[in-house]
Amino acid sequence: MRELPTLDDIRAAAERIAAHAHRTPVLRARGIDALAGATLYFKCENFQRAGAFKFRGACNAVWALSDADAARGVVTHSSGNHGAALALAARTRGIPAHVVVPEGTVATKVDAIRAYGGSVHVCAPTLAARDAAAEQVRAATGATLVHPFTNPWVMAGQGTATLELHDQAGGLDALIAPVSGGGLISGSAIAAHGLQPALPVFAAEPDGAADAFESLRRGERITDLEARTICDGLRANIGAVNFDALRAHGVRVLTVSDAETVAAMRLIWQRMKIIVEPSSATVLAAVLRYPEPFAGRRVGLILSGGNVDLDRLPWT
Amino acid sequence: MRELPTLDDIRAAAERIAAHAHRTPVLRARGIDALAGATLYFKCENFQRAGAFKFRGACNAVWALSDADAARGVVTHSSGNHGAALALAARTRGIPAHVVVPEGTVATKVDAIRAYGGSVHVCAPTLAARDAAAEQVRAATGATLVHPFTNPWVMAGQGTATLELHDQAGGLDALIAPVSGGGLISGSAIAAHGLQPALPVFAAEPDGAADAFESLRRGERITDLEARTICDGLRANIGAVNFDALRAHGVRVLTVSDAETVAAMRLIWQRMKIIVEPSSATVLAAVLRYPEPFAGRRVGLILSGGNVDLDRLPWT
Repeated sequence: MRELPTLDDIRAAAERIAAHAHRTPVLRARGIDALAGATLYFKCENFQRAGAFKFRGACNAVWALSDADAARGVVTHSSGNHGAALALAARTRGIPAHVVVPEGTVATKVDAIRAYGGSVHVCAPTLAARDAAAEQVRAATGATLVHPFTNPWVMAGQGTATLELHDQAGGLDALIAPVSGGGLISGSAIAAHGLQPALPVFAAEPDGAADAFESLRRGERITDLEARTICDGLRANIGAVNFDALRAHGVRVLTVSDAETVAAMRLIWQRMKIIVEPSSATVLAAVLRYPEPFAGRRVGLILSGGNVDLDRLPWT
Repeated sequence: MRELPTLDDIRAAAERIAAHAHRTPVLRARGIDALAGATLYFKCENFQRAGAFKFRGACNAVWALSDADAARGVVTHSSGNHGAALALAARTRGIPAHVVVPEGTVATKVDAIRAYGGSVHVCAPTLAARDAAAEQVRAATGATLVHPFTNPWVMAGQGTATLELHDQAGGLDALIAPVSGGGLISGSAIAAHGLQPALPVFAAEPDGAADAFESLRRGERITDLEARTICDGLRANIGAVNFDALRAHGVRVLTVSDAETVAAMRLIWQRMKIIVEPSSATVLAAVLRYPEPFAGRRVGLILSGGNVDLDRLPWT
């Protein structure tokens, strides 16, 4: 596989993960359609195993390994959904998973990794400490590093959600997914343009973590933006290969405030009766804030996950 | 139609409402299956239009009217989901709906009825005042009374959820639905036994509103139990015709505490990423409290609705 996966790689990923990942439903909500002035198809990755799309990429990366490599396990660094997803994916193959998490990671996330059988390695909360810790595990165990968004098998796996969405909606006029490190939007854009080359593809990004937006505007990648947003899944800076994918596919980034995201999240909970995390709601917030490119169109929205702390909701 | 509908009546209802009601999905949750020691099929009526199964019965009743009767509209009394459902059902036929609600009904519920185009009539919070107000509307307008649970078209409509569930699950070994006035459990038992005559059918009821349980135990219907439960959809006493249905179909009532219901509700939110109201969660609470009749079986659970106040969750 080249640095960026192709449609064929994404199709191969779909076959590889079929026995393990859910084909999640696509939901409609006519009340929200009326507000948006568009026909919205919500791809419900909050119903995916481990509660987020991350399981697709992790599962593809785990099952793409040779038996010899797989036996030595996998390692990653993640304070969020990718770590839990990789632990669960490793369990589907019966191999070890090591997850490096920074000090101060909330207990529920660490518990989720352990509940799926992953080994947790705590490091200081810096990029250097994180990379050193992952390298240490790799050197000691021979485990394969599965990066949360630059790994091509991860990107290919994330793209499988768009393959399904395209099929379930019977074609689309526009697609939007959240952007953080860029694994999801890369896989989504590649899948979408493989199927419909002229499809407009959008990314939703929080105002307080708008490094992808700003990188595209400047024409060079920002790597040191410190995120300030309630969207805990969208705080990473975009990866180099992911930034290439954004440019190659002409992805337009739409930024939204946390207040707009919380309002959209509440709308989804109230009207659709599903639980999505703030990161997921950015896509609806963007469609509502920038209605023009979506007006009257069939729009696919990827709801990225549903892992929220039910004791601390953003509106209470 | 006789006082109790038949399987044919339920099949006719399914055809009548097909253009208006959602065929709601059936979800699975392997983590909850492991806790229950059974294979659970959750019929998601929280995704039904107006947020609850009530739309099925209301829609069937509205569309079963002659054109002349329909033109004079419909009237009901309900402080909950049935009022909103009837208003929406009436709107699908373009006819007036009148809903009598007691003083003190929470504003969000009254707003929902009005949002669907229903006319709200406020009465004193007694059964006599409620019936008098509904009769007054009926006399003044010629509207047809659509009782929330004793109306046979309502019961037939509620039974359509079980027809779908049976088909979606590919057969069941047991079925459980909540019981309040008894419209849902009546329609469910009739549908289930029409398809599988020996299927064990259960009803879940809050400890604090256990009039159906107590009525079966005594062999005569209790009509004056004052409900004390957080399950706002399960506070009605069972109807006479509905009590007949419970006995005719050998329905076994399983009672659960509010604490068990809240724990089950939280489990559904956390693991399944869907929003259900407390009334819905009684069915899972019952399966977890009384595992014996469900062990190793394929169990259909009807999640009745998803209308909750997101600002006041029972665990916060």
